[in-house]
Amino acid sequence: MIVNETNRIVSFVKSPDSNRRSDRARTAILAAATASVAEIGYAKTTIEGIAGRAGVGKQTIYRWWSSKGAVVLDALLAEQAEIELPDTGDFTADLRTVLRATVDEFADPGISATLRALMIDMQNDPALSERVMERMLGPQLDATKRRLESAQEAGQISADLDLDVAVEMFFGPIYHRWILQTMPLDRAYADSLTTLAVRALG
Amino acid sequence: MIVNETNRIVSFVKSPDSNRRSDRARTAILAAATASVAEIGYAKTTIEGIAGRAGVGKQTIYRWWSSKGAVVLDALLAEQAEIELPDTGDFTADLRTVLRATVDEFADPGISATLRALMIDMQNDPALSERVMERMLGPQLDATKRRLESAQEAGQISADLDLDVAVEMFFGPIYHRWILQTMPLDRAYADSLTTLAVRALG
Repeated sequence: MIVNETNRIVSFVKSPDSNRRSDRARTAILAAATASVAEIGYAKTTIEGIAGRAGVGKQTIYRWWSSKGAVVLDALLAEQAEIELPDTGDFTADLRTVLRATVDEFADPGISATLRALMIDMQNDPALSERVMERMLGPQLDATKRRLESAQEAGQISADLDLDVAVEMFFGPIYHRWILQTMPLDRAYADSLTTLAVRALG
Repeated sequence: MIVNETNRIVSFVKSPDSNRRSDRARTAILAAATASVAEIGYAKTTIEGIAGRAGVGKQTIYRWWSSKGAVVLDALLAEQAEIELPDTGDFTADLRTVLRATVDEFADPGISATLRALMIDMQNDPALSERVMERMLGPQLDATKRRLESAQEAGQISADLDLDVAVEMFFGPIYHRWILQTMPLDRAYADSLTTLAVRALG
């Protein structure tokens, strides 16, 4: 709703041509960021390099993004479909599907390296941390909370659960293995974790 | 046992005086690392700075440690008592004590900043990562596994649990909140998490 209002105001101020140019520049920048990270990795990717590949000036990038991490985050998100968890009625099976997909993502060396680099940058960049939370982690956790609510309505898990605590029973242990590299992160692990976490919500 | 053997061999090769000098240097280096991190933080702490404070040459530090992270890790560990979990017979109460102590530690700005910096360094330094696992995380997870075994023997939790998966039900969600800063990390959270994680092991 708010986004629509904003778009309408922007359309009123700018000409349609200038809007189309903006859209093209944004798309080119995100594609350039994706290509750069895939070819030379996050660490060597720079705003200058992205601008060069996209055929825009550095200032065009800084108009929309405050850091390399923010551009790369949006490039990652541009490739993702809208986040909605499966709801087949079988709560355990649906969560198992999600946790398997999550460990598969972390098992992809390219995605894992980029997420790790973003996670490191977040620790010293509160603006990036907020943006990752708002655009990536928040929506993921919210989608999971919606699936937990539907399980609560179906009487499959306790009605009085704190859902913020509950969602981290699924993703917390996966991040622990991924960041601290304590043990293998594979589908067998996703399945064991699903069993325990579902039991926790009993 | 192995440590005693090694000490005996070292004593045989080196004179008692040289051993005493080594012990004094190690103690001074660890104290200097602690003081430096407390005063100027992990990021600005350097091997040179630690050497200067401890009154030793840089090479003396590199004889025992391969990186700043490795020295700081040992300095942190020198202040910790041996890790053993309480075993009062009340499994839930004992785990609640441990999780409260863990969130208290993460709530301490100094400790939290140092652990965060170590965690970041670990991501690009496999030797440091291995050392943190071997000397800090591994012993913590092992001590928790011993407590879970004693609960299994008492018939308080399932006998067929994979204890590696089980321990991360307690610590994974805490790390998730701490690293991703999703939500407040306080004692109320430690208590809610204890309830759910204990139920998971049911």
